[in-house]
Amino acid sequence: MKLQKRERQARLSSLLEENPLLTDGDLAEHFGVSVQTIRLDRMEKGIPELRERLKDVAVRSLDDVKSLPIDEVIGDIIDIELDKRAVSVFDVTRDHVFQRNGIARGHHLFAQANSLAVAVIDDELALTAKSSLNFIKPVRAGERVVAKAAVRPGERPRRTIVEVISTVGDEPVFTGTFEMYRTHESGKEGQS
Amino acid sequence: MKLQKRERQARLSSLLEENPLLTDGDLAEHFGVSVQTIRLDRMEKGIPELRERLKDVAVRSLDDVKSLPIDEVIGDIIDIELDKRAVSVFDVTRDHVFQRNGIARGHHLFAQANSLAVAVIDDELALTAKSSLNFIKPVRAGERVVAKAAVRPGERPRRTIVEVISTVGDEPVFTGTFEMYRTHESGKEGQS
Repeated sequence: MKLQKRERQARLSSLLEENPLLTDGDLAEHFGVSVQTIRLDRMEKGIPELRERLKDVAVRSLDDVKSLPIDEVIGDIIDIELDKRAVSVFDVTRDHVFQRNGIARGHHLFAQANSLAVAVIDDELALTAKSSLNFIKPVRAGERVVAKAAVRPGERPRRTIVEVISTVGDEPVFTGTFEMYRTHESGKEGQS
Repeated sequence: MKLQKRERQARLSSLLEENPLLTDGDLAEHFGVSVQTIRLDRMEKGIPELRERLKDVAVRSLDDVKSLPIDEVIGDIIDIELDKRAVSVFDVTRDHVFQRNGIARGHHLFAQANSLAVAVIDDELALTAKSSLNFIKPVRAGERVVAKAAVRPGERPRRTIVEVISTVGDEPVFTGTFEMYRTHESGKEGQS
């Protein structure tokens, strides 16, 4: 059953507050209306399109990253809490795929995940020591890959584990476990 | 004890036949002479410099690669025997390192190894399914990374394992195990 316009626009706003990454297509599917209707809803509510929303969150996250200059991160970081979690978005273009089969090359998915794993570390030096990867589903040009990183302590001193799950829409396409080397222990009191 | 020039030049030629990747520096160290002496030796024997030697071997290997166009391989393939082994060379420049610490970014080492793992597969379609990586020693700009891939059968149908060891000089800097998906079984009689 379709919602009244007013009700739909209210829910749309709160949905986007929770998850600014939803595309117009995702929203149209969610509400069972056309993409055009969603565009009109956004315009009426003054909600910018996804690309603009991303820029906005990305800019707010920049200052937090410590281990590398932000332009060295592959993809756009849209959320980050150091030594806890981070999210980045990477738009796959024709430059990132194999000519022959149109499938995104593994090293681009790896680069997004690995640079997010470096960025999330609350230390001036963070290096990847080991990594274990699963390429679950081929990704194609035009798709948006959302990588989510979650941090947990490593078993050895100055090691931190970062688990990254990359999805396109709701589907996982890649997972990576990164054992990161850092110069300082994480989570110490009084650490600057 | 230094060798006579004639003896040294003879040994130099046969060394380079075995391993065309040796630099003038490697050779100078090996014979306990200056790099300048090695250059003169090469000139007298008509042996081109390393960069030219590499081009030569690279060109001879090109036609063999089946799974992707050669310009999609990261690094220069200098030797390849499909479904058996392959070697590639990748020169790390300032573009490949972290600005802050000058250490080569993991995804470049991964890209060299992974694209070699794809190239060595004797099939039109080869995709990476899983991968496990060790970053053993930091690599810096100006260093040459030699990646060697060795192929063995996978445990599941249409899977092949490629083990890659990357070295700088004699030192291993990176290892990767790649579980590759392919469309045809390897090593079948009569396979075209």
